[in-house]
Amino acid sequence: MPKIDLQAVEHVNRTGYPPPFDAPVAGRWYRRLAPATNLTQFGVSHVTLEPGAWSSQRHWHEGEDEFLVMVSGEAVLVDDDGEHVLRAGDCAAFPAGERNGHHLQNRSAADCVFVVVGAGRNEGGDYPDIDMSFTPAGGYVHKDGTPYPAARVP
Amino acid sequence: MPKIDLQAVEHVNRTGYPPPFDAPVAGRWYRRLAPATNLTQFGVSHVTLEPGAWSSQRHWHEGEDEFLVMVSGEAVLVDDDGEHVLRAGDCAAFPAGERNGHHLQNRSAADCVFVVVGAGRNEGGDYPDIDMSFTPAGGYVHKDGTPYPAARVP
Repeated sequence: MPKIDLQAVEHVNRTGYPPPFDAPVAGRWYRRLAPATNLTQFGVSHVTLEPGAWSSQRHWHEGEDEFLVMVSGEAVLVDDDGEHVLRAGDCAAFPAGERNGHHLQNRSAADCVFVVVGAGRNEGGDYPDIDMSFTPAGGYVHKDGTPYPAARVP
Repeated sequence: MPKIDLQAVEHVNRTGYPPPFDAPVAGRWYRRLAPATNLTQFGVSHVTLEPGAWSSQRHWHEGEDEFLVMVSGEAVLVDDDGEHVLRAGDCAAFPAGERNGHHLQNRSAADCVFVVVGAGRNEGGDYPDIDMSFTPAGGYVHKDGTPYPAARVP
């Protein structure tokens, strides 16, 4: 059925981030909606951030477009331009190759929910605030190229 | 800037539907967010339906995946399975090639808003309720293949 029973989709807070970078996303709970609904041409995550949680480490993608729409609650989008409060209905877009690291922080006292869509070439990308990048093969590496003993969660 | 200034994006109610099929979408106002934000790997429309308006004629796509999330207000998703009320936060997915005609109707007394994402191969599709189909080349045809003097709006 086209209308999605969100409760029936696995709800996880998995991350492949090596410590200590995993701590800020422990309160990020998500559902992967595309595989659950037979969509293959883009990915869709339905994400809940608990108070204090981040959507990810601040990052950008070399080859992948991202788009998000806030569904409820409030988050702060942090990017190279500063901080921008997002509330229900607000949208943001992150074109492939634009090296403007971005993430959402829930600084409020309540959960917030957003939907994020991504598609494109898996060409890796960077986390500008920390000694970590991600590779096209799905690995995490130090800025000098040395691998972390961890892999990205699909 | 990643946060989108929605008010700055052109707001239109254009349609390429030939009469009388255009009448139900006259109250459908949308913003094309992908070209406005340099996203190229999927399309995103931010859509407002006035009371009484439909999102489209009931349709399905041969080669394109679609996903939508309700942002505010209430709409009725009509598909081959029946009618399903969508409210803020509800999501729906329409995989390419699934011949389940679908659309949203705003039967409420207030505007409703949703965001819809689409990507894939442009292989045409069908409107099961009316004597019209759409072609990969972007034209509208009768079920017997005779063209309408109209073309799809990009």
